[in-house]
Amino acid sequence: MKDKAVAIASGGMDSTVLLYDLNERGFETLVLSFDYGQRHKKELDFIAITCKKLGFEHRIIDLTGITELITSSALTFGKEVPDGHFADLTMRQTVVPNRNAIMLSIAAGAAMNIGSHFVATAVHGGDHFIYPDCRPAFVDALSMAMSLAADDLFTEGAFEGIYSPFITTDKAYIAALGHAMHVDWNDTWSCYKGGEIHCGRCGTCVERREAFMLSGVEDPTLYEDYDFAWEAIEKHKRGEQ
Amino acid sequence: MKDKAVAIASGGMDSTVLLYDLNERGFETLVLSFDYGQRHKKELDFIAITCKKLGFEHRIIDLTGITELITSSALTFGKEVPDGHFADLTMRQTVVPNRNAIMLSIAAGAAMNIGSHFVATAVHGGDHFIYPDCRPAFVDALSMAMSLAADDLFTEGAFEGIYSPFITTDKAYIAALGHAMHVDWNDTWSCYKGGEIHCGRCGTCVERREAFMLSGVEDPTLYEDYDFAWEAIEKHKRGEQ
Repeated sequence: MKDKAVAIASGGMDSTVLLYDLNERGFETLVLSFDYGQRHKKELDFIAITCKKLGFEHRIIDLTGITELITSSALTFGKEVPDGHFADLTMRQTVVPNRNAIMLSIAAGAAMNIGSHFVATAVHGGDHFIYPDCRPAFVDALSMAMSLAADDLFTEGAFEGIYSPFITTDKAYIAALGHAMHVDWNDTWSCYKGGEIHCGRCGTCVERREAFMLSGVEDPTLYEDYDFAWEAIEKHKRGEQ
Repeated sequence: MKDKAVAIASGGMDSTVLLYDLNERGFETLVLSFDYGQRHKKELDFIAITCKKLGFEHRIIDLTGITELITSSALTFGKEVPDGHFADLTMRQTVVPNRNAIMLSIAAGAAMNIGSHFVATAVHGGDHFIYPDCRPAFVDALSMAMSLAADDLFTEGAFEGIYSPFITTDKAYIAALGHAMHVDWNDTWSCYKGGEIHCGRCGTCVERREAFMLSGVEDPTLYEDYDFAWEAIEKHKRGEQ
């Protein structure tokens, strides 16, 4: 019998590569995606394709009931998604308060329930500046809390914490790793705006292009705006916003 | 302007007393209750009464979409709620994996969003034996994780962590405190079975009776079975289950 894993996945490059990684390691994986009212809900269709390819069970958890409580973010309600480099201060508008903690807590509950040793997340080094709940100190503290919540008698000692293999790497590494595992990048979706094709201007489109560029992996993505990313990256290097 | 608080509350004695405590301390409190498919959903009607009395905003968060993922517990699906002392091993059946982490993470997200310094929970010493996610080490670790998730720039430094004033006290103390603050115990609901009146036999009914007995506070509750609790308490003292 295969060991079980639970992973949270969005349909972006990072979580798609994470699923390929778990597949390589031989885990039977329950994949959880979350509908928190994000504009770019179409990412969930993309992760479903990857789950099907890998033979993983996929569930979408409806969290729209809590979206109203955490309305700050431009990713959900009326506000506009900002254009620019993903590490610009303007990107703070895309923070959904405590989103990772909420998703990881639910996934950890599911992991304890099915006897999985861990819950896997694709948070990576590039997320640290903008998203406080993607930083190593946060993930360590939450992992500790979750492992304390998994009482031995209850989970038969199975659950140990959070598996975050990319937490100290950057997205270029993830692109290279995905390339090595033959990930089809057309099965992934990054754009926060959720239009027909990737916009090329929002923080996560810029981040996607930069990851491909730095890793030397070919980027097959169609972008509405091809030039914006390079300008944003150059401006960010010069310290402009 | 009053300082804001966010509290999670179920409608039992503990969370009701917590709300009175927050009221005494002058907080404008957003109260969150959770529908996770529990049998004893009627507890939510009770907390609504208390919120109305105290002038607190009350929201019920629908988590039934995740209940299926965490099916182990006798509090939700088909299994029977066990009778007996609340610290008996049989009560482990009533553990909902990671429930507190899930609820506290959502509430912390709401707290960060409205600029509250903390999220309050009524977990207490009597919960420790059976519920791992009610123990001080867990609450400390989660509080640390949440405060790390609350980036200073994002929340303007407001959010600090979890407020759990009862974590080292027992339920008898809570009964005495509630009595001092004139809590109407008829506004509280404990029974896990969620029938017409309190059953008197399930773990939380036994715990309720014991709290009143040990504190010397009069118990106005109607129980279907009046004698069971004393027997369960005596048996537990003798080490029988």
